[in-house]
Amino acid sequence: MKVDYNELKQVAIDLLAQRGVTLEDIAKITLEIQTQYYDDITLEYCLEHVNHVLSKREVINAVLTGINLDMMAEQGHIKEPLRSILMNDYSLYGIDEVLAYSIINVYGSIGLTNYGYVDKLKVGILKDINDKSKNHERCNTFLDDIVGAIAAAAAGRIAHTK
Amino acid sequence: MKVDYNELKQVAIDLLAQRGVTLEDIAKITLEIQTQYYDDITLEYCLEHVNHVLSKREVINAVLTGINLDMMAEQGHIKEPLRSILMNDYSLYGIDEVLAYSIINVYGSIGLTNYGYVDKLKVGILKDINDKSKNHERCNTFLDDIVGAIAAAAAGRIAHTK
Amino acid sequence: MKVDYNELKQVAIDLLAQRGVTLEDIAKITLEIQTQYYDDITLEYCLEHVNHVLSKREVINAVLTGINLDMMAEQGHIKEPLRSILMNDYSLYGIDEVLAYSIINVYGSIGLTNYGYVDKLKVGILKDINDKSKNHERCNTFLDDIVGAIAAAAAGRIAHTK
Amino acid sequence: MKVDYNELKQVAIDLLAQRGVTLEDIAKITLEIQTQYYDDITLEYCLEHVNHVLSKREVINAVLTGINLDMMAEQGHIKEPLRSILMNDYSLYGIDEVLAYSIINVYGSIGLTNYGYVDKLKVGILKDINDKSKNHERCNTFLDDIVGAIAAAAAGRIAHTK
Repeated sequence: MKVDYNELKQVAIDLLAQRGVTLEDIAKITLEIQTQYYDDITLEYCLEHVNHVLSKREVINAVLTGINLDMMAEQGHIKEPLRSILMNDYSLYGIDEVLAYSIINVYGSIGLTNYGYVDKLKVGILKDINDKSKNHERCNTFLDDIVGAIAAAAAGRIAHTK
Repeated sequence: MKVDYNELKQVAIDLLAQRGVTLEDIAKITLEIQTQYYDDITLEYCLEHVNHVLSKREVINAVLTGINLDMMAEQGHIKEPLRSILMNDYSLYGIDEVLAYSIINVYGSIGLTNYGYVDKLKVGILKDINDKSKNHERCNTFLDDIVGAIAAAAAGRIAHTK
Repeated sequence: MKVDYNELKQVAIDLLAQRGVTLEDIAKITLEIQTQYYDDITLEYCLEHVNHVLSKREVINAVLTGINLDMMAEQGHIKEPLRSILMNDYSLYGIDEVLAYSIINVYGSIGLTNYGYVDKLKVGILKDINDKSKNHERCNTFLDDIVGAIAAAAAGRIAHTK
Repeated sequence: MKVDYNELKQVAIDLLAQRGVTLEDIAKITLEIQTQYYDDITLEYCLEHVNHVLSKREVINAVLTGINLDMMAEQGHIKEPLRSILMNDYSLYGIDEVLAYSIINVYGSIGLTNYGYVDKLKVGILKDINDKSKNHERCNTFLDDIVGAIAAAAAGRIAHTK
């Protein structure tokens, strides 16, 4: 089997957009993490790093898998009781964090604390994602962790570069 | 939301059975790992430990999620290109190993080498699972890693107990 | 070799005390994480869960290893350049977060966000630990991550129980 | 603090050499893993990939930390009871596998099964390392896992490239 990860990257970006998240939304979270460390950091610079994170195979695979799970839960293709667990973003489920961790790890463990921080404080678009999920309009069990993890990994990549 | 993990354990066991794997099949893999260390070990003893592994929330969640992904790929509910990646058990996908790792970790990192070993040598029922997957009769991308990981975790639990 | 992990737990508690951290200090961090979710939670209750976390083999091993590394860096037994990396808590080192992750994982991945949160905001005694480290009075490269991880794991354990 | 990871890479290579392991020894393990998949693979090719793995910050940090722990256990600088745990390569210690996992993860989770396989079968120089450790001539608790993990990560990198 031959898989072209340049094409798959675009699929991942399209899936995120379909779920209401642009790369700029993610870069804004990265910016908010990093402004406390670097005064002169710009959104463009963060966006560039988000783009690099999204070029990584592990990240693309995690995005495709997580968002597909969210969508199939919404559409009712996932069997009960897993469907209800996902629709309610059940706090002891934990597989969403497992996928997030595989994203964070791409630039080493220094992304770990950034992830926890943005997830807990629901920085930027994470608040919207979470609100929609709480109103049961959408199943965003994986989406919020994926978005937070990409933003945190991009912050980690910036720390590696600076 | 209230989730009863005793019920969910039974759902996980039923899903494994539906995919052709009994707890005894898993215990046989554990037995093969452990006979080189302990002469007097029995299948019953291994089965007991497999049962304990399957009582853990993280394990149950990983089983439900992985097997649902396999089944939805077969049924065509998962969108392309992820569907083809799963149907072909594409070697660079890696999310199956990520889920496996979350199972192994339940009894600490000592299960890690056992998992790699049984996965590589396709011990016991892992050979059947893999063959069916190769013939494209079934999508077992997650199933083989899940079964290997439970067997390895059970071996780790035995090492902790002895 | 026979290792008694009840004795080792006491060694770990003594090492933490020697580095200026009591179990009550850790429980206070757990309390601060959890008061936003449960009104009626007490310090005693958190302390009980911290105690359970510290009974786990993986946690004890991580505590012994991390604190020994901090101490040997201070005492000059660790060779350069690793010694300087540890003495300066170099942000790209990352092995401290790796050990922290092995602690958090003991109660599943739900501890992950709590860890990032307390680490970033330097909740409770984490501020003191970090200040001492910044003044180069002490090498606390591992200590702060270990303490944050135990507090986060205890919060995860409470979430599992409630 | 400024750290030059090109220099640190050389320090890591020197430390491995000091403990009796050359990069060629590691490449031989990678070769043995990969010959079953690719007929025409050469030692030079594997060596090149081992070299790339050793350029990664996370890998260098894990090598420096693990080998320092082995050496300080031998020299008696590590306090009891941790010293005895390391000198005896106590099977429930697990922190050696935790460090190994951070190495493997650098090229995604596909290195995981290779690591378990070579660790279990003690491929190539892993047998020597293990024998010396069993005779208590040396403390190689971390060394064997580090070497196996680098070899497995290199195999993972080859799979990504091919």
